[in-house]
Amino acid sequence: MSATATGATTTTTPDTSDAPYFKSYASIHIHEDMIRDEARTATYRRAIFALGDRIRGKAVCDVGAGTGILSVFCAQAGARKVYAIEASDMAKQARLIVMENNVQDTVQVIHGRVEDVDLPEKVDVIVSEWMGYFLFYESMFESVLLARDRWLNKDTGLMLPSAATLYMCPVHEPYLAEEKVAFWSTFPKERYGISMASLGTFAKQCLHEEVAIDPIEPEQCLAWPVQAVSIDCNTLTLAELRSISGTFAFRAIVSNEMHAIAAWFDVEFPCFSDETDGQAVAQPESSDRETAQTTARKRVRLEQTEQGTKEPIVLSTSPDAPPTHWRQTLFRLLDPVPIQQDDIIAGSVRILPDEQYKRFLGVQLSLKHKGNSILENKHFRLTDGSLAQ
Amino acid sequence: MSATATGATTTTTPDTSDAPYFKSYASIHIHEDMIRDEARTATYRRAIFALGDRIRGKAVCDVGAGTGILSVFCAQAGARKVYAIEASDMAKQARLIVMENNVQDTVQVIHGRVEDVDLPEKVDVIVSEWMGYFLFYESMFESVLLARDRWLNKDTGLMLPSAATLYMCPVHEPYLAEEKVAFWSTFPKERYGISMASLGTFAKQCLHEEVAIDPIEPEQCLAWPVQAVSIDCNTLTLAELRSISGTFAFRAIVSNEMHAIAAWFDVEFPCFSDETDGQAVAQPESSDRETAQTTARKRVRLEQTEQGTKEPIVLSTSPDAPPTHWRQTLFRLLDPVPIQQDDIIAGSVRILPDEQYKRFLGVQLSLKHKGNSILENKHFRLTDGSLAQ
Repeated sequence: MSATATGATTTTTPDTSDAPYFKSYASIHIHEDMIRDEARTATYRRAIFALGDRIRGKAVCDVGAGTGILSVFCAQAGARKVYAIEASDMAKQARLIVMENNVQDTVQVIHGRVEDVDLPEKVDVIVSEWMGYFLFYESMFESVLLARDRWLNKDTGLMLPSAATLYMCPVHEPYLAEEKVAFWSTFPKERYGISMASLGTFAKQCLHEEVAIDPIEPEQCLAWPVQAVSIDCNTLTLAELRSISGTFAFRAIVSNEMHAIAAWFDVEFPCFSDETDGQAVAQPESSDRETAQTTARKRVRLEQTEQGTKEPIVLSTSPDAPPTHWRQTLFRLLDPVPIQQDDIIAGSVRILPDEQYKRFLGVQLSLKHKGNSILENKHFRLTDGSLAQ
Repeated sequence: MSATATGATTTTTPDTSDAPYFKSYASIHIHEDMIRDEARTATYRRAIFALGDRIRGKAVCDVGAGTGILSVFCAQAGARKVYAIEASDMAKQARLIVMENNVQDTVQVIHGRVEDVDLPEKVDVIVSEWMGYFLFYESMFESVLLARDRWLNKDTGLMLPSAATLYMCPVHEPYLAEEKVAFWSTFPKERYGISMASLGTFAKQCLHEEVAIDPIEPEQCLAWPVQAVSIDCNTLTLAELRSISGTFAFRAIVSNEMHAIAAWFDVEFPCFSDETDGQAVAQPESSDRETAQTTARKRVRLEQTEQGTKEPIVLSTSPDAPPTHWRQTLFRLLDPVPIQQDDIIAGSVRILPDEQYKRFLGVQLSLKHKGNSILENKHFRLTDGSLAQ
């Protein structure tokens, strides 16, 4: 066997060296995955074109530009100047894309880290696709906040996206776990005359320790999802980002076994215009897929919206939205908990930078069912070795 | 997007710390994958039971015991004592498996690295499943050689496996590469009004730089495979292991485009007995799948066999053998090369420890077609970030 997650590379000072992180973005495949993600790419494009006069003639900073696709969208939407900052070697490819789309007079690719470069002017818009698994994995949002505080025009500046919300929900998810535990009690004995059932307990423990990145079905939800954490990209401080926490409470809408807490996020963009550039843009089939949850969310957002004059544009990674490469995030319980309809499941979440490597993430969950503890400050780690995908 | 191959962990001294490597074997999933691999598990079991009197009453050392499955097989085959050395925390699980199979009087699990532990006696057999992708990835064989030189009875001691051979073959493999290059020239333009064709060149370069772990079909072979490297586990020295090289020459059996050099390996076990323990053991359906290649290989092995009194037992990861988790290894050319039947393709391979992290691997390939250079000392790296799977 070969280890596929040994994770050891050339980091000599794990807390500070981002070399391996940026190296992972220097290959083409991660960018293909992102651009193939239609919900992501089409929603960003729609959000950029919906800025109307708020982008035409304005200066933009694209934080972590990658292939430069968002920068080109901004140029096409009429930006006067786009600073496309990219730390990985993909910056060289972004320059080619800029030339290929004939926006080299507008888009300036800057090969460097936000922390190390400077811009010659303030900008009117900061656009960035900074979201990782469970919203915060990768810790890229820190660089976006830094860019905001250094370069974005106070008062009038726009953040794209402008807000992010993390949802959580108890779910029924016996499928993978039961199969992986049952494997040890059946397969080897039949084939090889050796009993390995005692590994079932350990397999269960491993599934409980790891954070899974998996798609779930809306039908697996045992309650209406709730907002566990909501952040305003315009005002959040770095200190706040580093100690995010939230509480939640669910009322079960069905009776069934609970196996995990699922989490997902949406981000929203202000909308000032109905215009698009006239070309077909992928639209989630919201009428088919819309549920009470998304309807309620949209209504709330519509009432609260301040920056935009129209309904905000939402990129959702919810199980009832079109699938994205972020899928959903699952924190599995060690053992299933039987839930009765109308039971209350309540808890809290804390999101912490990892102590060993800042791109990793610590997630602390507490969970009670009818007042009895299910999880008590259980610490999950999102690392590239512990994420089950 | 989230990086799935950032690879950064806690290694402070990358050349010496094996913590991340052993950590990857402390989770259950990698072991499930190995035990699910029937060609692997069943062949090892068959090889152990085929030792007959060479294992009954004898002392065995299992290097990198993992779940302990091979150690239990050895105990069931009559070993007097089995030292199961496992560096990762899986050692604790191996102890449970030993108890569960009631062989605790025979199997002693030693939680530690081969480099750090000692055995109270010499052993008659060393068994180990040390093979990684492209045979040598992970560099685990170094520990096996160390165990051999410290503990195996000279002259009479047996190595399981006793020999390993690396095969190479030019292959037709346009499928993935062409699709991944074409993606950039078509998809984004249609959907998003942005042209990204210039990334096609970069995508091709990435595919050329990475080593792919993929299954290929026997029909994709453009020539009979040849043995590029062959090692004798009984006599190979550590110094030899660290500077392995070989040459090869193919004569094309068809006319077609060549896209890559494929590589795979087999390992063989000496056979002293026809006995099994009477239980069903998975057998490759060799009569259906056997080709001129495997027939020729078996004939050669049969003539050369010294240790065993019967035909050696072979675990093959060839594309014409039952699939294994090792699949095949592909080194892609930058551009396809048109090959005519009877053309000669010749080259050389050098396998080097990686300079940055000893579990990674450097592979240097040279390749000529009708005397013209296709690859000139092209250096491939097998790392957990660069392996395309």
